[in-house]
Amino acid sequence: MGDPKTHPGPRIPVAVLGATGTVGQRFVRLLADHPWFRLEALAASERSAGQCYRDAVTWVQTQPLDDRVAQMTVRTCEQILEGRHELVFSALGGDVASEVEREFARRRLVVTNASAHRMDADVPLLVPEVNPDHLDLLVAPAAGARLPAGIVANPNCSTIGLVLALKPLADTIGIDRVSVVTMQAVSGAGLPGVSSYQILDNVIPWIPGEEEKLEIETGKILGRLEDARIDPAALAVSAQCNRVPVVDGHTLCVSVGLRAPAQLDEVREAWREFRAEPQALGLPSAPPQPTVYLGDDEPPQARLHRELGKGMAVTIGRLRECPVLDARFVALSHNTLRGAAGGAVLAAELVVARYGR
Amino acid sequence: MGDPKTHPGPRIPVAVLGATGTVGQRFVRLLADHPWFRLEALAASERSAGQCYRDAVTWVQTQPLDDRVAQMTVRTCEQILEGRHELVFSALGGDVASEVEREFARRRLVVTNASAHRMDADVPLLVPEVNPDHLDLLVAPAAGARLPAGIVANPNCSTIGLVLALKPLADTIGIDRVSVVTMQAVSGAGLPGVSSYQILDNVIPWIPGEEEKLEIETGKILGRLEDARIDPAALAVSAQCNRVPVVDGHTLCVSVGLRAPAQLDEVREAWREFRAEPQALGLPSAPPQPTVYLGDDEPPQARLHRELGKGMAVTIGRLRECPVLDARFVALSHNTLRGAAGGAVLAAELVVARYGR
Amino acid sequence: MGDPKTHPGPRIPVAVLGATGTVGQRFVRLLADHPWFRLEALAASERSAGQCYRDAVTWVQTQPLDDRVAQMTVRTCEQILEGRHELVFSALGGDVASEVEREFARRRLVVTNASAHRMDADVPLLVPEVNPDHLDLLVAPAAGARLPAGIVANPNCSTIGLVLALKPLADTIGIDRVSVVTMQAVSGAGLPGVSSYQILDNVIPWIPGEEEKLEIETGKILGRLEDARIDPAALAVSAQCNRVPVVDGHTLCVSVGLRAPAQLDEVREAWREFRAEPQALGLPSAPPQPTVYLGDDEPPQARLHRELGKGMAVTIGRLRECPVLDARFVALSHNTLRGAAGGAVLAAELVVARYGR
Amino acid sequence: MGDPKTHPGPRIPVAVLGATGTVGQRFVRLLADHPWFRLEALAASERSAGQCYRDAVTWVQTQPLDDRVAQMTVRTCEQILEGRHELVFSALGGDVASEVEREFARRRLVVTNASAHRMDADVPLLVPEVNPDHLDLLVAPAAGARLPAGIVANPNCSTIGLVLALKPLADTIGIDRVSVVTMQAVSGAGLPGVSSYQILDNVIPWIPGEEEKLEIETGKILGRLEDARIDPAALAVSAQCNRVPVVDGHTLCVSVGLRAPAQLDEVREAWREFRAEPQALGLPSAPPQPTVYLGDDEPPQARLHRELGKGMAVTIGRLRECPVLDARFVALSHNTLRGAAGGAVLAAELVVARYGR
Repeated sequence: MGDPKTHPGPRIPVAVLGATGTVGQRFVRLLADHPWFRLEALAASERSAGQCYRDAVTWVQTQPLDDRVAQMTVRTCEQILEGRHELVFSALGGDVASEVEREFARRRLVVTNASAHRMDADVPLLVPEVNPDHLDLLVAPAAGARLPAGIVANPNCSTIGLVLALKPLADTIGIDRVSVVTMQAVSGAGLPGVSSYQILDNVIPWIPGEEEKLEIETGKILGRLEDARIDPAALAVSAQCNRVPVVDGHTLCVSVGLRAPAQLDEVREAWREFRAEPQALGLPSAPPQPTVYLGDDEPPQARLHRELGKGMAVTIGRLRECPVLDARFVALSHNTLRGAAGGAVLAAELVVARYGR
Repeated sequence: MGDPKTHPGPRIPVAVLGATGTVGQRFVRLLADHPWFRLEALAASERSAGQCYRDAVTWVQTQPLDDRVAQMTVRTCEQILEGRHELVFSALGGDVASEVEREFARRRLVVTNASAHRMDADVPLLVPEVNPDHLDLLVAPAAGARLPAGIVANPNCSTIGLVLALKPLADTIGIDRVSVVTMQAVSGAGLPGVSSYQILDNVIPWIPGEEEKLEIETGKILGRLEDARIDPAALAVSAQCNRVPVVDGHTLCVSVGLRAPAQLDEVREAWREFRAEPQALGLPSAPPQPTVYLGDDEPPQARLHRELGKGMAVTIGRLRECPVLDARFVALSHNTLRGAAGGAVLAAELVVARYGR
Repeated sequence: MGDPKTHPGPRIPVAVLGATGTVGQRFVRLLADHPWFRLEALAASERSAGQCYRDAVTWVQTQPLDDRVAQMTVRTCEQILEGRHELVFSALGGDVASEVEREFARRRLVVTNASAHRMDADVPLLVPEVNPDHLDLLVAPAAGARLPAGIVANPNCSTIGLVLALKPLADTIGIDRVSVVTMQAVSGAGLPGVSSYQILDNVIPWIPGEEEKLEIETGKILGRLEDARIDPAALAVSAQCNRVPVVDGHTLCVSVGLRAPAQLDEVREAWREFRAEPQALGLPSAPPQPTVYLGDDEPPQARLHRELGKGMAVTIGRLRECPVLDARFVALSHNTLRGAAGGAVLAAELVVARYGR
Repeated sequence: MGDPKTHPGPRIPVAVLGATGTVGQRFVRLLADHPWFRLEALAASERSAGQCYRDAVTWVQTQPLDDRVAQMTVRTCEQILEGRHELVFSALGGDVASEVEREFARRRLVVTNASAHRMDADVPLLVPEVNPDHLDLLVAPAAGARLPAGIVANPNCSTIGLVLALKPLADTIGIDRVSVVTMQAVSGAGLPGVSSYQILDNVIPWIPGEEEKLEIETGKILGRLEDARIDPAALAVSAQCNRVPVVDGHTLCVSVGLRAPAQLDEVREAWREFRAEPQALGLPSAPPQPTVYLGDDEPPQARLHRELGKGMAVTIGRLRECPVLDARFVALSHNTLRGAAGGAVLAAELVVARYGR
């Protein structure tokens, strides 16, 4: 078997739905020079369709827009549906996503960042390092197809950082209770998203729907696949979500109740040792170390650490005992890279490495 | 008995130690036109002594500096010690505060915002609405004196918001566990305090020493006075403290374990009904409602609610059940008003109303 | 003649159009307890009409919403048009404002913050301290009416600060060239206005249409009324406008070319001495000193000085010679108070004091 | 002649003075894997000397600290002086820099970011694309030395962006007046630098000493070298400097008076065509395009464009006519890369390419 990093076949043509939003822009950036995928089509709303991408988008990325992509004509989702891309990335808004994604998923693989289908029984809610086996929910590729059809969903941006930090503990020690308070960046709300008038010199301690997502998604992702269905993990999760005036990077204060008495050393070790299927397969977007433990006196900080592992690592620090539960720590992840477009691209890479060869 | 709001006697001459820092400036503002107190002396470091206050201070308050005070000559603490002010407010830094405050306290009442003596056995750690009876730790005024000598300590800025929110619940239902995550404003770190280069576009999930203070002070304040000593409340407290790019106002995400099963309605009611001795006595700085519950869907926000009750109220919202403990909510308080200078002035008012008449 | 501060007659019933936006909210705040006006009706878009104001508005003011107003039912502009309010404040958006305001102005006085009619020949573009005589463009009140009908326009929020700072110089020394660079707060863009994702950790050196407004409005306001028309001042104005991550307060760096050689002392003196009709009349919203000069080494700062004179003063500092033009300085004004709702209320007070008695 | 990009000889050993500050950290980052230089020694204050660099520094860069450098022992300047590094980068503070740098410069090349010697007659104030010929002020290398001894000074961070934007115009059309207003990032003030309490929700329209630097340095840099001395350019410069809550990137609003009538097209063209000696020599840190013109409707933005050309390009946009001078535009440059450490490294590269071979 060859090294997946040098994907042997020709690059797989892909499309991005919802390409003008902030997550869509991240997809465009990540796919502009991806070794396995070739970005061939962009879809956005009726209003943008027909324009060249450069004109349709309000580009807010720090890296300049790739020239080839800038000149691509934006299409509608309907037009993309007629095309032959085997793989479609979706950054559609929740309301539109539901139907459109199902339509695409009848004959294509859809890797989506939308929340519409995350809790559907036939949809793997995938964090590649955490529950790669959940991909078995997908039906094997049809004859002549390289990839299975169906939907693979990216969890909520905060959930991803949380479960990556929890997974090594769940595997080695066991967790039964999690209390998490998030401090989330504004990029998570997209564009126009959070008004500057509301968030400057402020914390908004409410992100509608977010806490529920964190609480329910965590159980599904850490759940067990049995008889082609997911049995959620038995885990009480309390999430309190806040919006803070930070551009990128969600910071999480986490307390956990452990299933067994454990030394903090074991916990640190679990993070430091953690490697998973994406690392073993050498997937192009996989960070060498998914969970980086900085040190007991070194707090992960959004501006300093969000780009670690090209924005795909979770940075953890300040592990200490908790007077109420068992252990406490701080975790940080990049919400539009690992928490959105980057996570979805890594998910697609995992599917390709498993099936598409 | 007269109405304390119209304090009958002449105004009590007071001094402020550490008058040029941010908390010192708040003291100066609050005392500039206080109905009971007359600001007569300002002390700061050797470096500032001898200058007029206007020149010695980097004024960062939004209200202009009072002209009379601006022209006062800054003195050293030693010089103030020779004076005859019966009441001294201290905004000294921790290292200096310890000895100086004890010196002053031999013959005067010192109300301090410093942390040096907070946990001393003979020092009431006072939140006037929460533990006014702890003032009994003070020895009654000497013959000829209006006020008792000794130290009254203001708790940590975050602790104050927390215990005010907890007190109505502790009284009516009972609490045994508290998990709190704070998002604290930069003004709490004073001047120069937090470098802008470190906090812009960032969250710093560590404030050295802060978590320990919150955890230990809460127990003392909610403790019971027996045989002239404080018996700390039996309460497990877990605090996780974060610095966020907000000017004023500490936001707290709180989960509590209750001693008895309770309806959320009882909790809301407890906050809405809560009034205490400062309200009964009509102290000049007492907010009409110490704990303001906004509503289940209305999150307290630093920029919008920190000035409520002239910065002396704690604003609470988003009460809901907690999957890990029993109930969760958000609380907000102004860290340099209620959490520092304002709290200390209210404490002094309470002492005066009890003894000084 | 009586003291206008104690307006003799009953309070004048007024309505606010566009009451749910950020400027509309400022109107509501200022009119909630105005001594001359009684807020009786609120209009907003179809979507909000029929709701009570509390439900229709996303309140972002730091002072709580007045209870009486909170319970008022929001109406459409059409419904207000049928009412009998002699005076209407408009915070309508530009596109809607044009027609609606003309409609109202046929039988009422409309004081507007919208830009639609600012440059109309029959509309005074009023800064009460600067060009009160421009009110003569209005036709005298009809028989039985207290107030004249027509439109009085509030200039752009940046223009107001600029012309207030320039007026004392124009009167005493003469100005022929002005180069101004603005650093404008996000509240000037309303809600949702500027996305936080675009302005955090950023400066946006472009506010579409703003520079043109500043350049053209300044000439009209400083112009001379002759034969019932305004002759714009002969003044070259160059404006460069920037959005910065500040909540409230526009900061202006200004260079001026003077018509006559002058000492900087004369310039300082001009600002310090400046008083105008609103001060002479003692209008309720008039700041005691319209232009406050802080000092050569004291820069006006948005967070510290925007509330000066209840947000109605312009704060000036750092006067010094300019190597390119003649003199340079920094000016600051509160963009939603003096620069929007407060300015409009003061304008209305001036009309009332002139005609309405 | 070989390609300087593949510098033929062994890497030149270099030292960094003032290595723990923010500019020092940038030096460390840029030199960690520089193709021509090998970082061999770090100096900081007495307080840090003897510690390993990792412990001595408060690392605030987004890229992690290089392991080899992290373990280097910090020394004092005196200790470095005894070493044999031919090239020393200085990020010393102004007060210390003056003497120390002269001491080093007797036998070494010092490339400094400090302001102490910028206006010295024998010191080239170098922007490599603008005045490479000023290097002739240095005395040729002594026998056996590869590099000349002496001081090469990096201009002020704002000056660099300004003169890079002006140079193409000065060369092709001629400039006689410049009016510039800066909006400067907090990183320019170093650590602790600007207190967050003073800059959050604020603009500080004063940076002591900065305006004078911009005004005087611009003339020297654009001046002509004649008879081994610099004749400053005949150019009136007015600078007004502001600190804004931005992490990195100085934004400049510039108006220029031109020596000859010109079409805006010629100005645009001048920027687009501009290449200079560093580009011709292919210096490792030279951006391919030193001045990038974005477009008339595309404003350069700190967060989006500061990293262009690895932080070494100046981004320009919004060229338009000026009603007071002739033309106006916005320019942006990265203040700690191009404006500090990056500029100094590029300067050193230029010296090496000229002499060191």
